[in-house]
Amino acid sequence: MAESSSKQDYFVGVDLGGTKILAGIFDNSLKNLATAKLSTKSQRGVEAVIERVARCVQDAVDEADLSLKQIVGVGIGAPGSVDFDSGTVIFAPNLEGWKDVPLKKHLEKLLGVPVFVENDCNIAALGVYAAELKSKPRHMVGIFVGIGIGGGIVIDGHLYSGFGHTAGEIGHMVLEVNGPKCGCGNKGCFEALASRTAIFQRIKAGVKDGQKTLLTDMLGDDLDDLRSGDLRKAIRRGDKFVDKVIEEAAEYIGIATANLINILNPEVVVLGGGVMEALQDEMMSVIIETAKDYAMAGAMKGVEIVASKLGDDAGITGGAVLARREAKKA
Amino acid sequence: MAESSSKQDYFVGVDLGGTKILAGIFDNSLKNLATAKLSTKSQRGVEAVIERVARCVQDAVDEADLSLKQIVGVGIGAPGSVDFDSGTVIFAPNLEGWKDVPLKKHLEKLLGVPVFVENDCNIAALGVYAAELKSKPRHMVGIFVGIGIGGGIVIDGHLYSGFGHTAGEIGHMVLEVNGPKCGCGNKGCFEALASRTAIFQRIKAGVKDGQKTLLTDMLGDDLDDLRSGDLRKAIRRGDKFVDKVIEEAAEYIGIATANLINILNPEVVVLGGGVMEALQDEMMSVIIETAKDYAMAGAMKGVEIVASKLGDDAGITGGAVLARREAKKA
Repeated sequence: MAESSSKQDYFVGVDLGGTKILAGIFDNSLKNLATAKLSTKSQRGVEAVIERVARCVQDAVDEADLSLKQIVGVGIGAPGSVDFDSGTVIFAPNLEGWKDVPLKKHLEKLLGVPVFVENDCNIAALGVYAAELKSKPRHMVGIFVGIGIGGGIVIDGHLYSGFGHTAGEIGHMVLEVNGPKCGCGNKGCFEALASRTAIFQRIKAGVKDGQKTLLTDMLGDDLDDLRSGDLRKAIRRGDKFVDKVIEEAAEYIGIATANLINILNPEVVVLGGGVMEALQDEMMSVIIETAKDYAMAGAMKGVEIVASKLGDDAGITGGAVLARREAKKA
Repeated sequence: MAESSSKQDYFVGVDLGGTKILAGIFDNSLKNLATAKLSTKSQRGVEAVIERVARCVQDAVDEADLSLKQIVGVGIGAPGSVDFDSGTVIFAPNLEGWKDVPLKKHLEKLLGVPVFVENDCNIAALGVYAAELKSKPRHMVGIFVGIGIGGGIVIDGHLYSGFGHTAGEIGHMVLEVNGPKCGCGNKGCFEALASRTAIFQRIKAGVKDGQKTLLTDMLGDDLDDLRSGDLRKAIRRGDKFVDKVIEEAAEYIGIATANLINILNPEVVVLGGGVMEALQDEMMSVIIETAKDYAMAGAMKGVEIVASKLGDDAGITGGAVLARREAKKA
């Protein structure tokens, strides 16, 4: 089928998250041809989730009017630590029961296509680097601020994954030794100060303490359905409280950015993830100013700090970049 | 002279510090044959310091019964930001008037030997990596705790210097947003919490507040001649106050180590510098325990945290490694 038109190579990128699975079809120039989305339903167990990933890939392939035979490879980002060589997810805290799951092996069986597995933030960094920055900077750091905070590091044009393939765990960089408790058990981690979870907690705690905010008018007192976009709306309508919370989070993101610039002196720092997607207009100037205050002048020289425009697509784009990279090696 | 015996290549490593210049002669296997030391006398001006560096190199060469003709190259670590390609010291805060000093050019004129200039902590990391770890780990982070705190990063077996050659400025990683003021103008930098300067300040402040310590018996109430070695002596004689200050500093070093492990997932973290040299027996177990507490389990897996045995010689050794590396390229 369609053999004549298949001089083009097609790649699938998958973003496997705690709540949803996103798959995208990309051509050789990283153009996104189609996407598909399924909820993860992690509570149904490991096997069911893997089957859903396969189904999501097939949906996306079908959406692009292609068949699996035309797919050169699938690159998938998983929310946890990954052994790239074996394609095993070692541990994914937001996926129930995911410990030492041979994702590559299972998916290849289901799809009949080569599968490559990476950490989700690493893969998002790779997507931003290749598709958005056209692989131009030599060194890049990606900071992804969402429910949690993760990072990805590109050094000399290659994804840097470290000794045990865990590099980029920037969310657990301590910024404030006596700061708020983090999910990891420590105090004052970047993630405990500036993630969506941390921001929402601060807002809910403020409301409990009697803080006035437009958010309660919009969503009711319990703020159950709070989303990052609501914060943007509230700020634009003049909500001082939400503005202050977001400014504080942006300052922490700026300090973390400066720490990474001091340590790694990259050419570009890219900020992405759900919080940045919703609130970049509100946060970027504070992030940049704070980073400049905290980074050493020499380390900051010529370094760009930018917001990614890929949004939610960073992960699937990076998956396709990974699959394309591995296909070239083969 | 000695042409017949000169199948061996000789290299000079120089550590240019704020108070002293150290030069060492090394053979191809990085064996240290001789050293020489001069005070820096930075107040005499840039030119005088460069001449003193040249004299120190000549002293060391003479001490090893060699002549400059037998020296293949000189590698020098300078305490500031360096443009490696031109061999220029861009800025060295602890050397009076050192701004855009073409050190390589001047020294090559004085010595007639190729000279290579690097940041002092980068070069110390290189020395530890090549001479102490025999270049075995793929990725290494060096943390040097002295008057200030600096770092050096080895990635894929090569010194990583970043976009603008400033990578490794780990001393200005913020660990405690509202912590003590740092010389850089910010608050809560690693350097402001755990450097010799920070430790001494805390001890002197404690004494002013009436803290009892053996140090005042040893050195008088003003503690003017305090050295890191005195702290070790006091602790070994049961000084609870000094013990607590050092334990606290070790905890901060452990947290910084964990941050770097979370970010970079190196195979080895090496701790060096004057404070570590004097107090490693007192500090290492606290550093390691704290790092384990703060690093993500996956990132910590198989990672070694060790104290360098090179002490003050890390810099000159690294200088020789640099000269040897560049000679091979030529």
